[in-house]
Amino acid sequence: MFENNQNRTELSSLGEFGLIDHLSKAIELKNPESLKGIGDDAAVTDAGGKKLLVTTDMLVEGVHFDLMYHPLKHLGYKSIMVNLSDIYAMNAEPKQVVVAIALSNRFSLEAVEELYAGMLMACKQYHVDLVGGDTTSSNSGLIISITALGTAHADDIVYRNGAKENDLICVTGDLGAAYMGLQLLRREKQVFLENPSVQPEFEGNDYLLERQLKPEARKDMIELLKKNGVKPSAMIDISDGLASEIMHICKQSEKGCILYESKLPIDQKTFDLAREFHLDPTVCALNGGEDYELLFTISQSDYEKLRSEADISIIGHITAKEEGCYLLDKSDHKTALKAQGWDALKTF
Amino acid sequence: MFENNQNRTELSSLGEFGLIDHLSKAIELKNPESLKGIGDDAAVTDAGGKKLLVTTDMLVEGVHFDLMYHPLKHLGYKSIMVNLSDIYAMNAEPKQVVVAIALSNRFSLEAVEELYAGMLMACKQYHVDLVGGDTTSSNSGLIISITALGTAHADDIVYRNGAKENDLICVTGDLGAAYMGLQLLRREKQVFLENPSVQPEFEGNDYLLERQLKPEARKDMIELLKKNGVKPSAMIDISDGLASEIMHICKQSEKGCILYESKLPIDQKTFDLAREFHLDPTVCALNGGEDYELLFTISQSDYEKLRSEADISIIGHITAKEEGCYLLDKSDHKTALKAQGWDALKTF
Repeated sequence: MFENNQNRTELSSLGEFGLIDHLSKAIELKNPESLKGIGDDAAVTDAGGKKLLVTTDMLVEGVHFDLMYHPLKHLGYKSIMVNLSDIYAMNAEPKQVVVAIALSNRFSLEAVEELYAGMLMACKQYHVDLVGGDTTSSNSGLIISITALGTAHADDIVYRNGAKENDLICVTGDLGAAYMGLQLLRREKQVFLENPSVQPEFEGNDYLLERQLKPEARKDMIELLKKNGVKPSAMIDISDGLASEIMHICKQSEKGCILYESKLPIDQKTFDLAREFHLDPTVCALNGGEDYELLFTISQSDYEKLRSEADISIIGHITAKEEGCYLLDKSDHKTALKAQGWDALKTF
Repeated sequence: MFENNQNRTELSSLGEFGLIDHLSKAIELKNPESLKGIGDDAAVTDAGGKKLLVTTDMLVEGVHFDLMYHPLKHLGYKSIMVNLSDIYAMNAEPKQVVVAIALSNRFSLEAVEELYAGMLMACKQYHVDLVGGDTTSSNSGLIISITALGTAHADDIVYRNGAKENDLICVTGDLGAAYMGLQLLRREKQVFLENPSVQPEFEGNDYLLERQLKPEARKDMIELLKKNGVKPSAMIDISDGLASEIMHICKQSEKGCILYESKLPIDQKTFDLAREFHLDPTVCALNGGEDYELLFTISQSDYEKLRSEADISIIGHITAKEEGCYLLDKSDHKTALKAQGWDALKTF
């Protein structure tokens, strides 16, 4: 695949997933311990007993966060959370993290302590150990790269590729709030830059800010599924937006889907603020991203086991591949889903 | 530890190891599976059968490499190698890597392919699987963060803290060559910047360039130790320089050491080029870094098993902690060792 390197293809023409797809083709797993490689929330390896899961996420200043409105302690917390969320999305239990950071001389020890305090708070809260890392310097911003390890019994692991026709599509919590929190922070930053004496106006929007700045991985939902005796047929966490994630499930399961606009769980605050910003709340829910909720599919026979759970919404069902991926809106129009969520490489 | 954050301590006043030491104090391992956390080449976790080892390293453009003289394919190869070297330094076998990279729009797909081609070549050569990763954008340079996983039987793992008094200090290969390779590349870059029509002069120095641009992790030495029935009492890989690394072993083992200048393995090319650059070859060997050789201690009773191995040099012995860490030079003068090796945070 790498033989003809005379051409120049802009990365922006592929996007992150295009690039990953492209690069993955050259990768072949050789070790019997490597059970699952690229293409899911976490890799799966075999170290003898339980299966071991590995996932990594990199957060780059100016791309993933803005220190003007991301307090370092929250950033540390969130950087752990996005990785744990990937382990939970495999129906596994996170156990360890290793943390690599690069920082410029803008950062004092106290700043790094704040960052780590947030990381350690997250680790404590989720019973995860920080077992190693690398600390180095950068010429410009802060870069945080975290790898999380988790374990699961082989039978418990839920991949993205197991969705069956007629399975119900479920999502935890509500969607679009983290995105609206970000819009709010950006607006207040703009106001501040124009007039530093104006105090930011966040009143009444704590929920949206918290969803953006201090998300929680849905460990509780994994426990709830277990308690209710439900093993999803496919699962993924929502980091890039619902539309993008359901399409990952459909692509890997070789299926289609129908989502019902009327069923999308959107908090009233998200709805109101989206309107205030002249945004369509449904688009925010579909493409906002950073929700860190779990999106999963279950067999219809499991419906009764989850129907009364307040924090789980059934938002659609899986169809045949040929039927494609659609949203049925409130006026019964079908629109093809597009993954317009967060794509770091498209923002070039 | 994080309560009083009103002060500002410059990170440069701590350096990387100071920072790690400082931050580590706040970290407590809770999971029974987390056998070894921060403070060695890799963490050790228990996933049921064999022990699992994890290590992570971040390479930042402009800090760890210069794309003017680091071809991307070599850089990919080296970025894997520095991680595998950490796993071998635990006397373990690397099995998987996960790769997170951030890149700016300077990079084309072809450039990324070159980088991955190098990584995959390294993986193939060392029978390691690339099982996952994260690809994102950066505002400026290229950042590569790799985590390697390996396995070992609990009894085989060699930590840094096991050196005993009178143990012999051994090192594989030769030292200082990667550092001289870097000096050469820097000189030719300078010449090129001043006059782009001048061809670089690398003749006869292939060995030094290769040591800098395409280092190899010493898998062969781990195999040789096993074959000869030797389990080191302590081991570390040399990334930051011999002096820095032996002091890590001594600190963690609560011992002192004597190194003999006359025993340091220095290749003739390294020696000659150091002289040409008006550098002391011994200082290059002690503090150059990036050798990715293995430094280990063995019981005197194992001496016979290794004495005829051409690629292993016995360069000193372990003493009592009170005796400190010294180099005995060729005129029998003792000089206290100082870790003047590579420290990313000191270069601020």
